[in-house]
Amino acid sequence: MIERLKIDLVESGRFGRNPLCTVERYDQLDPKKGVTRPTGTAADKAVRDYAVARMKEAGLSVRIDRLGNIFARRAGVKTNTGTVMCGSHLDSVIDGGQFDGALGVFGAIEAIRRLNDEGYQNARPIEVVVFTGEEGSAFGMTLLGSSALVGKIGVDEALSLENEQGKALEESLKEIDYLGDSIEDLRGVDYFIELHVEQGPILYDEGIPVGIVENISGISWINAIIRGQANHAGTTPMPMRRDALVAASEIVRFVNSRASEMAARPGASTVGTVGKFNVFPNGTNIIPGRVEMGIDIRDVVQHDMDLVRNEVIKAIRSIPQKYNIEVEVSTPISHSPTPLSRKVVASIKDAAGELGIPARIMNSGAGHDAQNMAAKVNTGMIFVPGVNGVSHSPMEWTEWDDIERSVRVLTQTLKNLSQQG
Amino acid sequence: MIERLKIDLVESGRFGRNPLCTVERYDQLDPKKGVTRPTGTAADKAVRDYAVARMKEAGLSVRIDRLGNIFARRAGVKTNTGTVMCGSHLDSVIDGGQFDGALGVFGAIEAIRRLNDEGYQNARPIEVVVFTGEEGSAFGMTLLGSSALVGKIGVDEALSLENEQGKALEESLKEIDYLGDSIEDLRGVDYFIELHVEQGPILYDEGIPVGIVENISGISWINAIIRGQANHAGTTPMPMRRDALVAASEIVRFVNSRASEMAARPGASTVGTVGKFNVFPNGTNIIPGRVEMGIDIRDVVQHDMDLVRNEVIKAIRSIPQKYNIEVEVSTPISHSPTPLSRKVVASIKDAAGELGIPARIMNSGAGHDAQNMAAKVNTGMIFVPGVNGVSHSPMEWTEWDDIERSVRVLTQTLKNLSQQG
Repeated sequence: MIERLKIDLVESGRFGRNPLCTVERYDQLDPKKGVTRPTGTAADKAVRDYAVARMKEAGLSVRIDRLGNIFARRAGVKTNTGTVMCGSHLDSVIDGGQFDGALGVFGAIEAIRRLNDEGYQNARPIEVVVFTGEEGSAFGMTLLGSSALVGKIGVDEALSLENEQGKALEESLKEIDYLGDSIEDLRGVDYFIELHVEQGPILYDEGIPVGIVENISGISWINAIIRGQANHAGTTPMPMRRDALVAASEIVRFVNSRASEMAARPGASTVGTVGKFNVFPNGTNIIPGRVEMGIDIRDVVQHDMDLVRNEVIKAIRSIPQKYNIEVEVSTPISHSPTPLSRKVVASIKDAAGELGIPARIMNSGAGHDAQNMAAKVNTGMIFVPGVNGVSHSPMEWTEWDDIERSVRVLTQTLKNLSQQG
Repeated sequence: MIERLKIDLVESGRFGRNPLCTVERYDQLDPKKGVTRPTGTAADKAVRDYAVARMKEAGLSVRIDRLGNIFARRAGVKTNTGTVMCGSHLDSVIDGGQFDGALGVFGAIEAIRRLNDEGYQNARPIEVVVFTGEEGSAFGMTLLGSSALVGKIGVDEALSLENEQGKALEESLKEIDYLGDSIEDLRGVDYFIELHVEQGPILYDEGIPVGIVENISGISWINAIIRGQANHAGTTPMPMRRDALVAASEIVRFVNSRASEMAARPGASTVGTVGKFNVFPNGTNIIPGRVEMGIDIRDVVQHDMDLVRNEVIKAIRSIPQKYNIEVEVSTPISHSPTPLSRKVVASIKDAAGELGIPARIMNSGAGHDAQNMAAKVNTGMIFVPGVNGVSHSPMEWTEWDDIERSVRVLTQTLKNLSQQG
């Protein structure tokens, strides 16, 4: 049965590759041929059309809301109980892989097909969902469709967001025939499950095929500008320097050592990274006069995330006294950690146990539509291992055996939840 | 008498400013209107023509060699003694200031004019020299004209160097009418003195109008590439990272602290700088996978420069064990320190003493044509303070009073040396 899903993932993985090519095995990956499928592009339309065709083939009734989110329903036996929803996204980053997002959509469709094959009768309705613009690669804002769905951003505001070509989301969705009119408020939805690639190395490293996500990390970004004095590297004596890079290096080491200390506590998920780092004027014989840094701190525990963030800001603010330098600090992004539903976590764990598939409880350091859904609905996530933990890269890959195991766990979880209550 | 020199420096400072403008005072400096006068440009021709006209007005006989170096001679009373030469360069960096180089040329011409005014009879011949292409802003190699003059590079090799437009130096010099035919071998030259802006903060900081250079620093460049693994900043646990920026930051701090320690020894001139620093892929939420660094180490003592360089290379090579990272090291530039002539240093010191002008012995952390000349001729340098120590910048400035003092010291030194032997 994996063959059917494999066809969907390989076929859908062609859309957005340039030139179009088919990747069925890890050794066919090419670092120059990633999947590029921003919202509103021809590739986005192609993959949506392909998914909708599979949904309809599977007997699902499809509706589309104003944000282009796609919902495909299998009716339940009962009519007065809430829906079990599952799905993910079909858009991609620039030069990504074929499983990020798509696995959660086609895995959910495959689960439905397996229920069909068995003639399974679900008590609750089951819906497959495709969220618009999760990656933010076209309209800037990540988790776009789910943010509008849960009311974190107004529908009209979302539709007026513009891509780099200055075209509004509304216009883009219209062009690809995915500007729908279904009004969705999630009041009839009790559960949401997202199957997704881990995007990290833990499962692959430990050789465990299934991860059950307990928390999605919160994210704090700190931007810092360190201003010293550019000067001649040969003629400016050491004690007279105001070297922005020497000061900034202290921050890099502080972020790394403090996050590492926090992460070393049992069960902790703290990470801290200086990822963006620009030095000016950037000539070997010129003392750096300015450094611009982008710092990313994440944790599943709000208090711990705030602690590290505040310590980093304090460290940056202490630079002026020590180095005769000026600093500017801003905090452009701050999202709270999202605990997922204990009930759904338990249900996924039970499903894996029933199937005898090894699984581990873990946290997600990356953001997902599930974190929006968790505000309104009992939400869980299933992770599959990615080879070497690589994602957002043409070299992203997940082994077919692991995909099969994850879809079996998803199918079983849908069954279990659909009978509940 | 300063008015005459001021006119020359202000007029010559117009060439290469865009738009052409006149800067007579510090408060007229504009960070967007620097002097840009690479070798072979129209601005280079204009400033050379201006200087040659002044040389001829001062009664000097002008000759030009194959590198475009200009020599202007005032005959001496004796015919069997070596020449006293003084001068500097007229080319500039991109967006430099009006005194770097030009002061040494027009200051020397002014010194000759003062000898003329006095009816002074020099025993030795005195020559003013203008070296071609000191800054390397057109043909890549710095100290170009003086390198060919002292035989560090062959004349034909130098003439075949190409600028960014692919035009050879020979062709460029021909176009501006400065491809001469004079054969110069320095065998008839006994002394060389270069008057130049300090390009550092020491004199300005200490309020001393004249610096007497004892040594020109040697320079060692180290290029290092630190290769880790780019990865998702949210999903890669701290212990599983191979963060190139964290590793590179340790090198930045090592270079700074080791050079600072060495510089703290009495009389030491050690400097160490990481000036070039590029981080890849350079996104806030991506662990840096690669850092490329350019390191500059200088000292007037060869042993100390080599010591710091070797320790830095050792520190870089120790990174792999510590951080599970790969490194590449190369050493593109290494020039030995140049001690200047004790005799000329003493002569400048005597001149300043006779005039009652405060002066201090110091080292030069920047390279100058004088370091080439020192290989063949007894060489000295006179420094003037730059406001805030700024150079290679549109904000470079030297106060007229300091210029006057330095020219008086230069004139007196020329007198003293021209009577020697």
